[in-house]
Amino acid sequence: MGKWTEELTQEQITEVNRQMAIYRKGVQELIPSEDLERKVAKAVSEKRPLKIKLGLDPSAPDVHLGHTVVLNKIRQFQENGHTIQIIIGDFTGKIGDPTGKSVARQQLTDEEVKENARTYFEQFGKVVDMEKVELHYNSKWLSKLDFEDVINMAGKITVARLLERDDFEKRMDDHKPISLHEFFYPLMQGYDSVVLESDVELGGTDQHFNILMGRHFQEKYGKEKQVAMLMPLLEGLDGVEKMSKSKKNYIGIDESPNEMFGKAMSIPDELMIKYFELVTDTGPEEIDEMRTQIETGELHPRDAKMKLGKTIVKMYHDEKKAAEAEKHFISVFSERLVPEDIPVMKWTGEDEVGVLDLLVELNLLTSKSEARRMIQNRGVSLDGDKVEDPKLQVSVKVGMVVQVGKRKFVKIEM
Amino acid sequence: MGKWTEELTQEQITEVNRQMAIYRKGVQELIPSEDLERKVAKAVSEKRPLKIKLGLDPSAPDVHLGHTVVLNKIRQFQENGHTIQIIIGDFTGKIGDPTGKSVARQQLTDEEVKENARTYFEQFGKVVDMEKVELHYNSKWLSKLDFEDVINMAGKITVARLLERDDFEKRMDDHKPISLHEFFYPLMQGYDSVVLESDVELGGTDQHFNILMGRHFQEKYGKEKQVAMLMPLLEGLDGVEKMSKSKKNYIGIDESPNEMFGKAMSIPDELMIKYFELVTDTGPEEIDEMRTQIETGELHPRDAKMKLGKTIVKMYHDEKKAAEAEKHFISVFSERLVPEDIPVMKWTGEDEVGVLDLLVELNLLTSKSEARRMIQNRGVSLDGDKVEDPKLQVSVKVGMVVQVGKRKFVKIEM
Repeated sequence: MGKWTEELTQEQITEVNRQMAIYRKGVQELIPSEDLERKVAKAVSEKRPLKIKLGLDPSAPDVHLGHTVVLNKIRQFQENGHTIQIIIGDFTGKIGDPTGKSVARQQLTDEEVKENARTYFEQFGKVVDMEKVELHYNSKWLSKLDFEDVINMAGKITVARLLERDDFEKRMDDHKPISLHEFFYPLMQGYDSVVLESDVELGGTDQHFNILMGRHFQEKYGKEKQVAMLMPLLEGLDGVEKMSKSKKNYIGIDESPNEMFGKAMSIPDELMIKYFELVTDTGPEEIDEMRTQIETGELHPRDAKMKLGKTIVKMYHDEKKAAEAEKHFISVFSERLVPEDIPVMKWTGEDEVGVLDLLVELNLLTSKSEARRMIQNRGVSLDGDKVEDPKLQVSVKVGMVVQVGKRKFVKIEM
Repeated sequence: MGKWTEELTQEQITEVNRQMAIYRKGVQELIPSEDLERKVAKAVSEKRPLKIKLGLDPSAPDVHLGHTVVLNKIRQFQENGHTIQIIIGDFTGKIGDPTGKSVARQQLTDEEVKENARTYFEQFGKVVDMEKVELHYNSKWLSKLDFEDVINMAGKITVARLLERDDFEKRMDDHKPISLHEFFYPLMQGYDSVVLESDVELGGTDQHFNILMGRHFQEKYGKEKQVAMLMPLLEGLDGVEKMSKSKKNYIGIDESPNEMFGKAMSIPDELMIKYFELVTDTGPEEIDEMRTQIETGELHPRDAKMKLGKTIVKMYHDEKKAAEAEKHFISVFSERLVPEDIPVMKWTGEDEVGVLDLLVELNLLTSKSEARRMIQNRGVSLDGDKVEDPKLQVSVKVGMVVQVGKRKFVKIEM
């Protein structure tokens, strides 16, 4: 505990410690930890809110559970009276964020950026109180900068420092091109923090470099440095890659109860507890208890996962819908004798495919004519629903279960 | 000879060849040579002038013989009716040109840039016809660019390409910082060529990278690519480093006849012919003859150098002043028995120094009191002029001859 305690009453110290315990929960990196404590202490003693920043790339507006890891943290700050600054990188979006990509992303038009931002706003309301949030478009200040301003900004950072960013370093090593304009994404993100005088910036660990740019530029422009609060990345349904729209391994927060529940049931057992920790409001004691019960065999992983599915559906719909989704899942899968270990097959074809092609390509049947006969005999189901029309176009999805006859099952992976 | 001959009359072909012979003279690199021929042919056939660009860094406005290598080439284009575009990098000057420097240069204020530019104009009139020159300040277009324009520009070049520039590469290898804003100097220089639609850009070989940026950006912005015409660099009085104001090894074109002549006499013998070729209007036949005469011993190098001194003074003053300067030099140095091989000493002290300190630090006398006595006895001369005042402040210069008594001489190097 730092020097800040000297000027605080015992009651205030208790309050700082209470808030710090909440903010530290689930955080992977806090840079530097003592700065956050000092800032919270000052906020408590001066009775003024901290400014908590979250920058959003408007190129992928479908909000999924991966986003909620950070949004839940935002809500914690909000519940303690702090000010949330959400920055829509509408200007930044014209460049695209090359984080974690090995090729430059395509630039968005003004129109696309605005439309995507609107979609974000609507969905965020499910997690945070949007009426208490400060919304900012960074084009407001960035579009006003002229060449001389840009040069002044560029004069405050070295090329070597920028090349330290993992993806830039890798691309240099691999002799893959980095377009000079990509260097400006982290600069802009840092400059946003200068303009907004943010106290804390939130993001996933993949934002490590960009969020530290905020500290760098705030110092160079003579401002107090923000704290970088980095949350763990949530793996998607495949259990390997970061949850993202482009990997198609996500649970969207505006999906239907049945979709949500089904997808939750498809995550690997090993990730269950991490999901409870990062995307649900389940308390740490309850999570610890579940972990122990699973280890001792007292709780079947399938039942724990059912609980996870219900918890998630309840958060984004309601308790009744959660119960119905569970019931639907059980009736479709468990009661129709879906075996415990369904073989999983990777789908590499088109997202939209005729049902006959689907059955043949999955090697469930040997020819289209055989497939057509099986459908006419009411022997084919998709996610428990009988297929009636041999001309049906199927939207292939992760976790979809294809059944032929009584015993042949395949679960699709993408 | 390229395809362009097909559309030209015999007379026009002769004219193109005549001009090309002039333009090629003394050029170190012409990138690409065939493009210049094609452009000249088009200009001759369409009876329209080419646009010949020279960009100037306004941070060092004293024009010296090093500059005239390029200015003489400019005059050749001008004499053949082409348009000269002189760009004062007033905007660029705010960044400073890191070419050939291992540390970032200090930025200039608007005031300094404007004042320096004025000084350039006055001095250029001695070599080129300034009334026929198009003068441009690049702030006119560069200051109007906004952040989005800058990003678009930056999107047309890769980081790897910029790091190929010799000085950037060296600094990366040496782990010396490159500030990101320095990347913009070559971008701006290239963008100037886009705006001005230049056909040829002139510069020293140290401008190789920057001038090729013009070709790069003209192509990216859909313009015809300019030709890079790179002139050899002129070594300064020390015979080693490029002539420059900061190295104090230059002959300024507005120096007095005696200074010019004296400095010309101080260049190393090996450089004499190069000086004749690059900074005088002496014809190639005459230069060849001198070279042969020196080799055969028919012409004493000192006499050839006298001729060089006279030729230079005549160019920037007049024939009468040239004769007087020669006479002055002979009376001061040759007749006062300055030995042929004066020992040379490197001066590492301040530029301004008291004469007593100078004599002691050069080891010509052992103490200040001895030095004072020698001056009182009229035994000390600087460049042939007797020193009368022991409190004299001396501006130390390259080539300055310090004499003590009848036989002790030292020539100063810096």
